Amino acid sequence: MEVTRKNFQSVLPEVEKAIAESDFLSVDTEFSGLHASSSYYISPLDTPEERYQKLRKGSCDFLVFQVGLCTFCFNKENNKYEARPFNFYVFPRPYSRAAPDCRFMCQSSSIDFLASQNFDFNKVFKEGIPYLTSTQESQLKDSLEEKHKQYNLFSSPAFVTPDSGAEAVTTKGPINIPEEHKDFIEGICKTVQEFLDKEGEETLSLPPCNGFVRKLIYQTVKQRFQSGIHLAAKTDEKKQRFIVVTRIKSEDDMKIKEQEKQAAELAEVEGAVGFSKVIRMITHSEKLVVGHNMFMDVIHLLHRFCSPLPENYLEFKALTTCIFPKLLDTKLMANTTPCKEFLPNTVLGDLLKHISCSPFEKPEIVFPENFPQYKLDDSNLHEAAYDAFITGMCFIGMSNFLGNKKDPPVSNVSPDDSVVKPFTNKLFLMRVPEIPYLDLAADDVLPNREHIFHVTFPKEWKAPDLYQLFSPFGNVNIQWLDDTSAFVSLYKKEQSSSVIPALCKRDSKYKIITYELFKYGLPDKESKKRPHSTDSTEEESKKKKVLNVDAPVFVSRSRSATPPTPEENGNKIEEESLAPDSTSGKGSDQKMFEEPVW
Amino acid sequence: MEVTRKNFQSVLPEVEKAIAESDFLSVDTEFSGLHASSSYYISPLDTPEERYQKLRKGSCDFLVFQVGLCTFCFNKENNKYEARPFNFYVFPRPYSRAAPDCRFMCQSSSIDFLASQNFDFNKVFKEGIPYLTSTQESQLKDSLEEKHKQYNLFSSPAFVTPDSGAEAVTTKGPINIPEEHKDFIEGICKTVQEFLDKEGEETLSLPPCNGFVRKLIYQTVKQRFQSGIHLAAKTDEKKQRFIVVTRIKSEDDMKIKEQEKQAAELAEVEGAVGFSKVIRMITHSEKLVVGHNMFMDVIHLLHRFCSPLPENYLEFKALTTCIFPKLLDTKLMANTTPCKEFLPNTVLGDLLKHISCSPFEKPEIVFPENFPQYKLDDSNLHEAAYDAFITGMCFIGMSNFLGNKKDPPVSNVSPDDSVVKPFTNKLFLMRVPEIPYLDLAADDVLPNREHIFHVTFPKEWKAPDLYQLFSPFGNVNIQWLDDTSAFVSLYKKEQSSSVIPALCKRDSKYKIITYELFKYGLPDKESKKRPHSTDSTEEESKKKKVLNVDAPVFVSRSRSATPPTPEENGNKIEEESLAPDSTSGKGSDQKMFEEPVW
Repeated sequence: MEVTRKNFQSVLPEVEKAIAESDFLSVDTEFSGLHASSSYYISPLDTPEERYQKLRKGSCDFLVFQVGLCTFCFNKENNKYEARPFNFYVFPRPYSRAAPDCRFMCQSSSIDFLASQNFDFNKVFKEGIPYLTSTQESQLKDSLEEKHKQYNLFSSPAFVTPDSGAEAVTTKGPINIPEEHKDFIEGICKTVQEFLDKEGEETLSLPPCNGFVRKLIYQTVKQRFQSGIHLAAKTDEKKQRFIVVTRIKSEDDMKIKEQEKQAAELAEVEGAVGFSKVIRMITHSEKLVVGHNMFMDVIHLLHRFCSPLPENYLEFKALTTCIFPKLLDTKLMANTTPCKEFLPNTVLGDLLKHISCSPFEKPEIVFPENFPQYKLDDSNLHEAAYDAFITGMCFIGMSNFLGNKKDPPVSNVSPDDSVVKPFTNKLFLMRVPEIPYLDLAADDVLPNREHIFHVTFPKEWKAPDLYQLFSPFGNVNIQWLDDTSAFVSLYKKEQSSSVIPALCKRDSKYKIITYELFKYGLPDKESKKRPHSTDSTEEESKKKKVLNVDAPVFVSRSRSATPPTPEENGNKIEEESLAPDSTSGKGSDQKMFEEPVW
Repeated sequence: MEVTRKNFQSVLPEVEKAIAESDFLSVDTEFSGLHASSSYYISPLDTPEERYQKLRKGSCDFLVFQVGLCTFCFNKENNKYEARPFNFYVFPRPYSRAAPDCRFMCQSSSIDFLASQNFDFNKVFKEGIPYLTSTQESQLKDSLEEKHKQYNLFSSPAFVTPDSGAEAVTTKGPINIPEEHKDFIEGICKTVQEFLDKEGEETLSLPPCNGFVRKLIYQTVKQRFQSGIHLAAKTDEKKQRFIVVTRIKSEDDMKIKEQEKQAAELAEVEGAVGFSKVIRMITHSEKLVVGHNMFMDVIHLLHRFCSPLPENYLEFKALTTCIFPKLLDTKLMANTTPCKEFLPNTVLGDLLKHISCSPFEKPEIVFPENFPQYKLDDSNLHEAAYDAFITGMCFIGMSNFLGNKKDPPVSNVSPDDSVVKPFTNKLFLMRVPEIPYLDLAADDVLPNREHIFHVTFPKEWKAPDLYQLFSPFGNVNIQWLDDTSAFVSLYKKEQSSSVIPALCKRDSKYKIITYELFKYGLPDKESKKRPHSTDSTEEESKKKKVLNVDAPVFVSRSRSATPPTPEENGNKIEEESLAPDSTSGKGSDQKMFEEPVW
């Protein structure tokens, strides 16, 4: 169901009902860009915290254009799932001159990608549902109440700025009218006098004029006509501000008019909270929220509708768990044994096709009327609600598949089933082979990288020179950094310890250091350079953790099985967006190797 | 005439013809925002250089959505002007993966303003004409040529990246195929073999896959089948990259195919220059270019279509004059004696109405068919081409008005007439009462500000306290900076020298310093802090210049006569966008006084 500013208020109860009645929810978002600059491109060597910081700094200035929410409810009678997909267009339109005037970033390639999917930008900008973070909301309400208090306190309106929304409280007293304005203001007073003299009209609209002149009108007219009138500023359809004069019969009449105005202003803020209310409903429901490759979605949902992203990584985990108590990333599920054995790739569109046939079982879905009756062709792909919908389907398909493997087998697995539990509150880390997920509920797994080395070498060197250099240790993978440096990683990890002793020679043309040393510098620097959350002892313990559990439940598939392809939402753009910034062959190599290959 | 990506190439000759046949041109632009943040809001005390730096830092990340160009040609036979308005939708769509992937900023209130004018965002993002600055163009061409050279040099395609657009040259040699890929690559080779074995099909399209896999295919297939085939990467409508195999009959056939490909790549860059060609035509024509309040338009036209804005202010003047040898700002004309005496305000929409009646004479306009036959109602206001069109009309109206005042009177004044000359190459400075314009052809006029003082005072102080303090010197204007500081300027400038001696007392609750001192610090700091272009001696001479020429030809009207109102293109947003950031009465005061009042 398409939801815009036009029908949001009327649809909201239906959304609340759908969430309340659901077994679980799925979400997806469309946004205006991916990386503010190439320095925030993801790397296969990112730790979860490094990845978070890249997204926080490099992606948060982009805007969410569309949020898809799909609720799923299992019906025991007919063994079918009822799906209710909502497609929300959202835009932070300043609801008044007092509201925040958001600046946001767009990335041409992302916009072009959405355009190629026939995305309706006019709908976003003209009918997008507004929203406020809780912080913005309370700030606006506080200053409004403060303004109202002030008004009631010494309510000689000459000393307040009645038309400046929530931003203005008292001013520094009356302004003396500049020469060039005196005639105009006199003219206004004359018009008002005539309006008051002859009965009939309840209100009089003054000609549009700028804030300064309106201010002069306020103080002058108020002083001249005292309690006989009430003034309020309005905005016409052409966005011009003008003053409306209303005839006042008594002081009480005046008070009532003012109370009505103040109530209206508060209601306005209430309305401006807009889409954030939906997120609050989701939080409140404590239902399982499913997404596909959802790290970026979570980032944007938090940042735009809840609260600015914390600098501190652990605070981010806390915030996420507080807003979404139960999260599940279907991309992690699909990339994990046993599902992954049966999934040649896990790009959302393809994943749906895979789970639609054996050994998986395609779930049966019904839509209530007045909801889109989605066909399962790709025609709707990249519409947020459709992507959310098929994400939910994939979740059902995979969890039932896992259920069938149980002894005794379970069909129609519930979101609380033990086969689902291991996947909750873990976000898939795209293209990090050694760290399958970011763990919201526990310390992150930090991999051993003793088999990776940073090598600097002469400009003339090409791959064969490096293969040659490392030949004593078997096959290696090369990740070019630039003309004269690269990461080299051994396939035979057991050889790691022999590399430095064997290859570090005086006066050699090249220089080799461990990844550890390259990344965090010499031990004494460590504390400064390391991700704050891990002091070296923690570090050690985590390394062991990884070393001991050599084949954990979570074995990330190697890159090849999940070639990031255009179908991957936005991912394609991410892929290609590497090209423009890489201006040399190494650049393009680096791009290749952006996808881990060991 | 509406121009998009779809008809740009076919319309371009018509644009060139229109420019060539014109007496003068007028331009207007629509953009995605005004100020990156409140720190770039304009102030009535800005010098031209300060204003330039604010716009450069605070406005250049916004995007131009629409450029209006209108050519005017006077027809002696019928005394009518022929107008040809072109409305260009522009968008920096990356024409290939090698092209720049521009990040740009939007301001919600500006987007909302355009939306309220029923602006078509879909047309911008889906059909916008691409463009490149000269620098981008030559970079792309150079790296393409370099790539082609490399290819022809050692054209074993295994060692180049044929599908990486202009960014890739040589790579670091062949990559060894990771285990998990071997089957897939073998499968591909088998398909190619079958394709070659059976006659018939000229080409074979391989399944879409990511850059790394494509690379593996290139090197393997090329090695296996040598000269028998030619490979090229294509993008399908879903933006997936895939490889097309073409049967090759001979080495020559191969060479031809490659040459065709290289020619196509160069043509692609040529096409990507897009709208920038129109600006180059304008430059080449050396015709007078007219705009209304055009500083911001000039900034964007230079920055997006010609070259990034120079940090150095004088270089900016040079660049502008080089791209637009003859500029004229109708807002300056309208705000200057004698026109201004007959113009109650100079907002574009109103200006048109004013010059349409006595003492002005509304010019007679004809449009060639296949051009929009604009009605002079406001229905098209804020469409770039329409605004450009009426700007041209205002120019004709005002210059003919000035011509009639000559002795003997001149009708149908030409753009080279002596009455027009004084206005050329000067940009109107909005809301700077003391400096009517930025002079592109000479040193700027720097006003004397000895009558302005910076005062800091206790939080409790209100306007009356300041009026009281300065009462010995007559009436003052107050421009609030915050709770405890303000600029105070004397109406009686002759009193300036007495203020400091009289009011600077030990242990006073307040502190007063000259504007000079506040702005540039103590004399020894001057050199560092002053606008680089003016050393103190220059400064002196300029002050004299202003002091001597007390009533120059250019007397800027005082603020009141030009209340910036919503109709002002974008200006309205600028107006309103002050509100959100001002969170106190002083904020709102400051907003009022953003419009100069002395």
